[in-house]
Amino acid sequence: MIAFPFIRFLLGIITLGVAILMLAPCVLAWELGSQDRFAFLVSEAITAGTALSLIYFNRSATNKLNVREVFLLTGVSWVAVCFFGAIPFILSHTVVDFTDAVFESVSAVTTTGATVLTQLDDLPKDILLWRSMMQWVGGLGIVALGAAVLPFLRIGGMRLFRAESSDFSEKSSPHARRFLLHLLLIYLAISFFCVVSYSLAGMNMFDAINHAMTTVSTGGFSTHDSSIAFFNSREIETVAIIFMLIASVPFVLYLPIITGHFTKIRRDSQVESMLGAYLAVVIVLVVWLVLTDQASVSEAFRDAAFHVVSIGSTTGYVSTDYTVWGHFAVMVFFFLTFVGGCSGSTSGGIKIFRFKIAFIMFKETIRRLLHPNAVFSRSIDGRTLTDDTVASVSAFALAFASTVGVVAILLGAAGNDFITSFSAAATATANVGPGFGDVVGPVSNFSLLNDPSKWIICVAMLLGRLEIFTLLILLTPDFWRV
Amino acid sequence: MIAFPFIRFLLGIITLGVAILMLAPCVLAWELGSQDRFAFLVSEAITAGTALSLIYFNRSATNKLNVREVFLLTGVSWVAVCFFGAIPFILSHTVVDFTDAVFESVSAVTTTGATVLTQLDDLPKDILLWRSMMQWVGGLGIVALGAAVLPFLRIGGMRLFRAESSDFSEKSSPHARRFLLHLLLIYLAISFFCVVSYSLAGMNMFDAINHAMTTVSTGGFSTHDSSIAFFNSREIETVAIIFMLIASVPFVLYLPIITGHFTKIRRDSQVESMLGAYLAVVIVLVVWLVLTDQASVSEAFRDAAFHVVSIGSTTGYVSTDYTVWGHFAVMVFFFLTFVGGCSGSTSGGIKIFRFKIAFIMFKETIRRLLHPNAVFSRSIDGRTLTDDTVASVSAFALAFASTVGVVAILLGAAGNDFITSFSAAATATANVGPGFGDVVGPVSNFSLLNDPSKWIICVAMLLGRLEIFTLLILLTPDFWRV
Repeated sequence: MIAFPFIRFLLGIITLGVAILMLAPCVLAWELGSQDRFAFLVSEAITAGTALSLIYFNRSATNKLNVREVFLLTGVSWVAVCFFGAIPFILSHTVVDFTDAVFESVSAVTTTGATVLTQLDDLPKDILLWRSMMQWVGGLGIVALGAAVLPFLRIGGMRLFRAESSDFSEKSSPHARRFLLHLLLIYLAISFFCVVSYSLAGMNMFDAINHAMTTVSTGGFSTHDSSIAFFNSREIETVAIIFMLIASVPFVLYLPIITGHFTKIRRDSQVESMLGAYLAVVIVLVVWLVLTDQASVSEAFRDAAFHVVSIGSTTGYVSTDYTVWGHFAVMVFFFLTFVGGCSGSTSGGIKIFRFKIAFIMFKETIRRLLHPNAVFSRSIDGRTLTDDTVASVSAFALAFASTVGVVAILLGAAGNDFITSFSAAATATANVGPGFGDVVGPVSNFSLLNDPSKWIICVAMLLGRLEIFTLLILLTPDFWRV
Repeated sequence: MIAFPFIRFLLGIITLGVAILMLAPCVLAWELGSQDRFAFLVSEAITAGTALSLIYFNRSATNKLNVREVFLLTGVSWVAVCFFGAIPFILSHTVVDFTDAVFESVSAVTTTGATVLTQLDDLPKDILLWRSMMQWVGGLGIVALGAAVLPFLRIGGMRLFRAESSDFSEKSSPHARRFLLHLLLIYLAISFFCVVSYSLAGMNMFDAINHAMTTVSTGGFSTHDSSIAFFNSREIETVAIIFMLIASVPFVLYLPIITGHFTKIRRDSQVESMLGAYLAVVIVLVVWLVLTDQASVSEAFRDAAFHVVSIGSTTGYVSTDYTVWGHFAVMVFFFLTFVGGCSGSTSGGIKIFRFKIAFIMFKETIRRLLHPNAVFSRSIDGRTLTDDTVASVSAFALAFASTVGVVAILLGAAGNDFITSFSAAATATANVGPGFGDVVGPVSNFSLLNDPSKWIICVAMLLGRLEIFTLLILLTPDFWRV
C-alpha cells in the first residue's frame, strides 16, 4: 500500500463516498435523539478524516493504474468499505462484539443479507437505515465492477461482456466516466421507482426506502425479523418480485432508456434464460406443493414465485418458511442458491451466462464424441466463444466449487453440522443470505454461530462477491513479484 | 438392438462369461446343500441359454464396430451383466423383492459396494461368493474399459491415456487382444496375492477369497455386516490398505512386470499425486483426532489411514464408525468421496488426473489474469494438454456435479433428508459405498431406503461407473440419427 499513491488517492475518494452516505443515518440519529447519535458522529469523523487525509496526502499521485493495481484497488476498496461500514456498529450498542459488527457490515456490503442482529423491529431506525444503505452501496459497487472492471480484468469469462463503452484505455477516459455516470443514474432511478412502488403497495415510507435499497441491490436485509412475511401482503410481494427481477438484469441493458434511444434496447439471451429457468423451477415447486396437498394452486404460485426469485436472484427475502415444504423443496432451493442472475446485475451466485456456456460445452462434448473429426464453432448471443473464455468459465466454476468445499470443511472444523456447514458455505459464497437447517435457516439467524464460523463466512462472502479470482490473485506470489 | 447383430454376438460372449463364473457359486450351493441350489441352477440355465442363443444366431455377423456401436455395446453390456447377475438374487430367498435384487447386483457390478442385505453373516456362502464375484467382474470390466474403450471414445479427457498398445484400429486387432490378455493376467495375479496376504493375515480361506475379490475391484462388499471391523486386526487392515492402493493405480503400469521388462516401469505423476493427496488427508485427520483427544497418535493413524484409503480409493470398507469423529471429519470424508484413484484402475470418483488438470488450468487462469498477452503451453507427464482435453475434462466435471445434483434432488423428492439425499447421491455416483447420516451411513445399510430411492441410486451408480457420457450419449437424439 505504501508504494501505491494513486490507489491510496482513489481509496480516499471511495471512503469519502462512504462518509457522505453516513451523513444520512447520522442526521437521522440526531433528529430522533437516538442512543447511537454519538456513535454515528464519531464514525463520521473517523471515516471523513481518513478519506480526506488519503486524498490530501496523495493528491499529486500519477493518474494511472496498471492491471495489478486495478486488482489491488478492487480488493482493498471492498475490504475498506466493509471496515468503515462496521464502525457505526462497533461504536453503537447494536451488536455484542467486534466480530458481529464486521459480519453485519461484510454481509451488507457484499449484498449477502445474512444477519447476526436479532429483534430488528426494536432497533434504532438510524442503524436499520445504515444496514440498508450499505447494501445499496454494495449493489452499486458491483454494478460498476461488473460493467467496467471485471470484464477489463478478464475474470471468469466476463470478457464476453466487454462493451465498447467500457473500454478503459487512456483515450476513452471521459467516455468511461459518462458510462459510469449513466449506470449511477439508472441505479438511482430504479431505486426511486422501487420506493414509490413499495409505498403504493402499503409500506410506510421508512420501510419502503429500506426495502427498496435492499431489493435493487439483491441484498435482502429487512427492517423486520420476519422479513417480508411481516407485511403478509400480496401486493408487496409482487413489487418485490418485479424489482428483484429488474435488479437481476444486466444494468447496461437499461442504458438506452437514459440516453433516449429506446430503439437500441438489445435482447439479451441471458435475461430470457434467467426468466425461463426461474419459471421452470416455480412450475416444478407449484406442482410439488399441490400434489403433496400443501397449498392451493394460487397460494403455491404466490409462495413459490416469491422464493424462487428471492433465492435465484440471491436476494434472500423470506415470506414464509419454505424449508417445511419437504426434502424435495429443500434440495431444489439448495441448488437454486448457486444459480444467481445475469452478469452485470447486482445478483451473485454462479450466474446464468456461465450455465449457458457450460450447456453449450456439454452439447459440444456429446457431439464431439459421436463425430470426433468434425469442427465445431460456438457462439453465444452472436459473439464467438473462444477457448479462452471457456477455460476462464471452467476455472471460475472450479474456484466456486472449491471455495464452497473448503469453507464447508472449515465450518465443520468450527463445530457446525453437515447441513449448516454446507448451506452456510453455499449461501455465503453465492451472496444469497438464508441457508438451511436449525441454525442458519430462513426463520433463524446467523447469530447462533460461533465467532470462528462468522469470520470464515465473512471471507466466503467477500470471495463470492468479487468473483473469487479478484481476491485470490492477491494471495499469489506471482502477483507481488514486480 | 434388432439392427446390430455383431453387438448381439459380443453380448452373447459377455453373457457366456457371466454364465461360466456363475458355475462357481452354483457348484458351491450344491456342495453345501444350500437352500439356493435350485435358484442357482435355474439362473445358470437362463444365463447360459441366453448367451448361447445370442452367439449362435448372430455367429455370421460382420466383425466390425463403429464408434456409435462401441457406445451402445458398452452401455448394453453393463446393464446386461447387472441383469443376469441379479437373477440368482431374484430366485433365491436372500432378498425381499425384485428392486433389492437389482440394487445389489448393480451395486456389485459397478463396484460401489452399497448393500441392501442385512445379516450377511448368516447368509448362504454361495450368495456371498456371488456378490463378491460380481464385484470382481465389475472391476475387471472397468480396467478393460478404462485401458482400451474409454480412451478410444475420448470420454472425459481419457484420451490422454490412449496408449499405442490400446489402438483398436483394424490392423492392430491381435495386438489389442494381447494387451487385454495381459491386463487379465495382471488382475488375476494381484487377486491371487491378495488372497494369500489376507489368509496370512488371519482370514479363513472363504473370507480371504471374498475380500480379495472386493479389494482389487475397490468394491468393498464384505461377508460380515460389520465389514472389516469384524476382524479387528491391524494386519488385515494393513493388507487391505496395500491392496486398495495397488488397485487404485493404473493397471497398465504393471504391464512391464508381465512382459519381464522391469526397466520399462514408468513413473506416473498420477500415482504420486494420489499418494500425496491421501497422505495429506491422513495427516490432517490424525492431527484432528489427537487434538480433540479422540485417539492416541498410533490409533488415530491406523483408523485415519484405513478410511482415507478406503473412501479415497472408492472401496468403502469400514473398520470403525468414522462419522462419530465430529463434523470436521464428516465434511472431509464427504469431499474425499469425490476424489477417487487413478484413471485405468478399478477405482471410481472424479479421479486424480482430472484434479491435476483442473489445478493446471487454475494456475494458468491466475497467470493469464496478470499477463493477459502471454502465451502459455501446458503439459501433464510430458504430454501436451490440448484445449480439447481441457474442455473434455471440464465437461466431465460439470456432468459429474450435475448428476450428483439431479440425483440428490430426486432422492429428496423420494422423501429422504438433506444429508441422506446428498451423500447417497455422491457415494453412488462416485461408486464408493457408504454415505452419511442415520440411513446410509457406514454403520447402516441401504435397505432402509424406499424403492424409488433404490432405483434412482441404481441409475447413479451406472452413470458414475461408465463416466456418465457413455450412458448419457445413448439418450441423445443425435445418437440415434443415422
